[in-house]
Amino acid sequence: MRAGVHILITPTGLDKGTLTPADLLEIDPEGRAIAGRGRPSAETSLHTVIYHARPQAHAILHVHSIWNTLLSGQFASTGFVPLEGYELLKGLSGVATHVHRERIPIVENSQDYKKLASELAAALTENSGAHGVLLSRHGLYTWGESVAEARRHLEALEFLFEVEGRRLSGQQT
Amino acid sequence: MRAGVHILITPTGLDKGTLTPADLLEIDPEGRAIAGRGRPSAETSLHTVIYHARPQAHAILHVHSIWNTLLSGQFASTGFVPLEGYELLKGLSGVATHVHRERIPIVENSQDYKKLASELAAALTENSGAHGVLLSRHGLYTWGESVAEARRHLEALEFLFEVEGRRLSGQQT
Amino acid sequence: MRAGVHILITPTGLDKGTLTPADLLEIDPEGRAIAGRGRPSAETSLHTVIYHARPQAHAILHVHSIWNTLLSGQFASTGFVPLEGYELLKGLSGVATHVHRERIPIVENSQDYKKLASELAAALTENSGAHGVLLSRHGLYTWGESVAEARRHLEALEFLFEVEGRRLSGQQT
Amino acid sequence: MRAGVHILITPTGLDKGTLTPADLLEIDPEGRAIAGRGRPSAETSLHTVIYHARPQAHAILHVHSIWNTLLSGQFASTGFVPLEGYELLKGLSGVATHVHRERIPIVENSQDYKKLASELAAALTENSGAHGVLLSRHGLYTWGESVAEARRHLEALEFLFEVEGRRLSGQQT
Repeated sequence: MRAGVHILITPTGLDKGTLTPADLLEIDPEGRAIAGRGRPSAETSLHTVIYHARPQAHAILHVHSIWNTLLSGQFASTGFVPLEGYELLKGLSGVATHVHRERIPIVENSQDYKKLASELAAALTENSGAHGVLLSRHGLYTWGESVAEARRHLEALEFLFEVEGRRLSGQQT
Repeated sequence: MRAGVHILITPTGLDKGTLTPADLLEIDPEGRAIAGRGRPSAETSLHTVIYHARPQAHAILHVHSIWNTLLSGQFASTGFVPLEGYELLKGLSGVATHVHRERIPIVENSQDYKKLASELAAALTENSGAHGVLLSRHGLYTWGESVAEARRHLEALEFLFEVEGRRLSGQQT
Repeated sequence: MRAGVHILITPTGLDKGTLTPADLLEIDPEGRAIAGRGRPSAETSLHTVIYHARPQAHAILHVHSIWNTLLSGQFASTGFVPLEGYELLKGLSGVATHVHRERIPIVENSQDYKKLASELAAALTENSGAHGVLLSRHGLYTWGESVAEARRHLEALEFLFEVEGRRLSGQQT
Repeated sequence: MRAGVHILITPTGLDKGTLTPADLLEIDPEGRAIAGRGRPSAETSLHTVIYHARPQAHAILHVHSIWNTLLSGQFASTGFVPLEGYELLKGLSGVATHVHRERIPIVENSQDYKKLASELAAALTENSGAHGVLLSRHGLYTWGESVAEARRHLEALEFLFEVEGRRLSGQQT
């Protein structure tokens, strides 16, 4: 969560189910810890890349789900998951019609976070309209101007991933 | 929900999870706001069309689900989802046997609500026995003489959409 | 639920989610109401058939689920759902090994309850070891010496229906 | 759960949903009851085999799930379920990259617990890096240095079984 120039982030190695506000770390825009106990997660650099590339974003959500993992693998060679023709696309900020074409870019997963951060930055620039980014066989990043908007984007994208995943596995001939 | 000649409806842009009765808008049968803060949703005109075409209906439910989205796309070119041979069809008002043939018409989704309202009205007239209507890749409308009956219709139809969706994707040869 | 020679049963037309013990009807072994308000469900005769054919049974459960509906349709022409080789078969009373072959007979669904009762009685006699019976595209009946045993049978059978349903839809060649 | 040289285990025949700490049995490393009412489950010997083969383990979890049952049957002839390329593999203790290859061995299910214990011991020795073991069409055993770690392993493996199960059933060509 971004507040002014500082960012609040969950620390590494804690069970998300038992987190309290006191566990949040405060970091600067370069990802350095300013306040709070614990160490920022290795994925912190990806958050700072997104906040840099999407100045309106004030909240980022990252989720590993069955369907985003499946689609991020299935479409890895295509480079993006195409979503089109669904009313629920209107759950994405600025989208006013189901005719909208959303492309969620897929960045190849890596444990080299410098490489990952630079490829994520490139994907965000090339896909300036995208409301989320997938890491292949890893998970989804999405964001919003508020936590509520980021959640709405998360719910819309996960719903659409499941619909597309089921549709495609039902017609594989 | 219809009470006398007036209709209570949820306003646009509010998170349904945090709605309270005080948030409900009161509108007249033509969809004009009479009381309550907020603006009626763009889909209000579809509700008034249904109340007009189904005089017995006193409650309307509208749901986006994985399976109704899938079937409304899969059967879009057929024009309706056929449901037949299931005991749960008896969950639909007036249906006394599993031999019943239910056809849930599919109206092509649109952001032109005038066009949508007129096609919905036509679908309701042509399918006078239908207990619900689908908008393609969008969602289901169903209704009842009470909220309880509308919910029973919703549960029966969603159950049958899932059974049919799974049955069809399991035999795609 | 059987207590002595009398049977307690849920009345027709009530939402199961709001039932209280006071809503239960007391009926005799022929299905006639003895005490309680409301009318016994049309399926009462099926319960009395099961209590007659399975003297040890003191509780009967009847459930419509996605997977029992699917399998009862898919295997309708075979006449039974075969279940074999799963550890969870040991959840069925008297079954000591996963090598056990369980056959859940399928009775063709009907609104003629006399016909249905007589075919159910025949299925129970022919399949004296069966722990449940399916009505095609309708649902499952299972039972036990106690409510807890009937629930254990229900959970084991529903688990196995889902496993078999998913296994079969994943290998349609 | 292992505390010192003694082991706490759930007794046979109790509904896990109603267990309290007082129901736990204390057994010695050979599986003999030391304290507590009730009889150790027939699967106790499998727990002692795991504690013997994995000295760091202080908690063991055993779960029957839809997806572990399906994959343990589907890969029975291969002898193991291969898991590779998923970020969630990092949920397994000591795994630092999604490139990791996890092999979850499958032991053929049996009601002969002596045979099962000896085959389980062999599988644990041959697959010294494995974080879990499947019994075919039966369920998963996994473990950890603490209950929290065992739960993390369980959640990671079950997630990956579901992803792999859905991926494979969606591409059966």
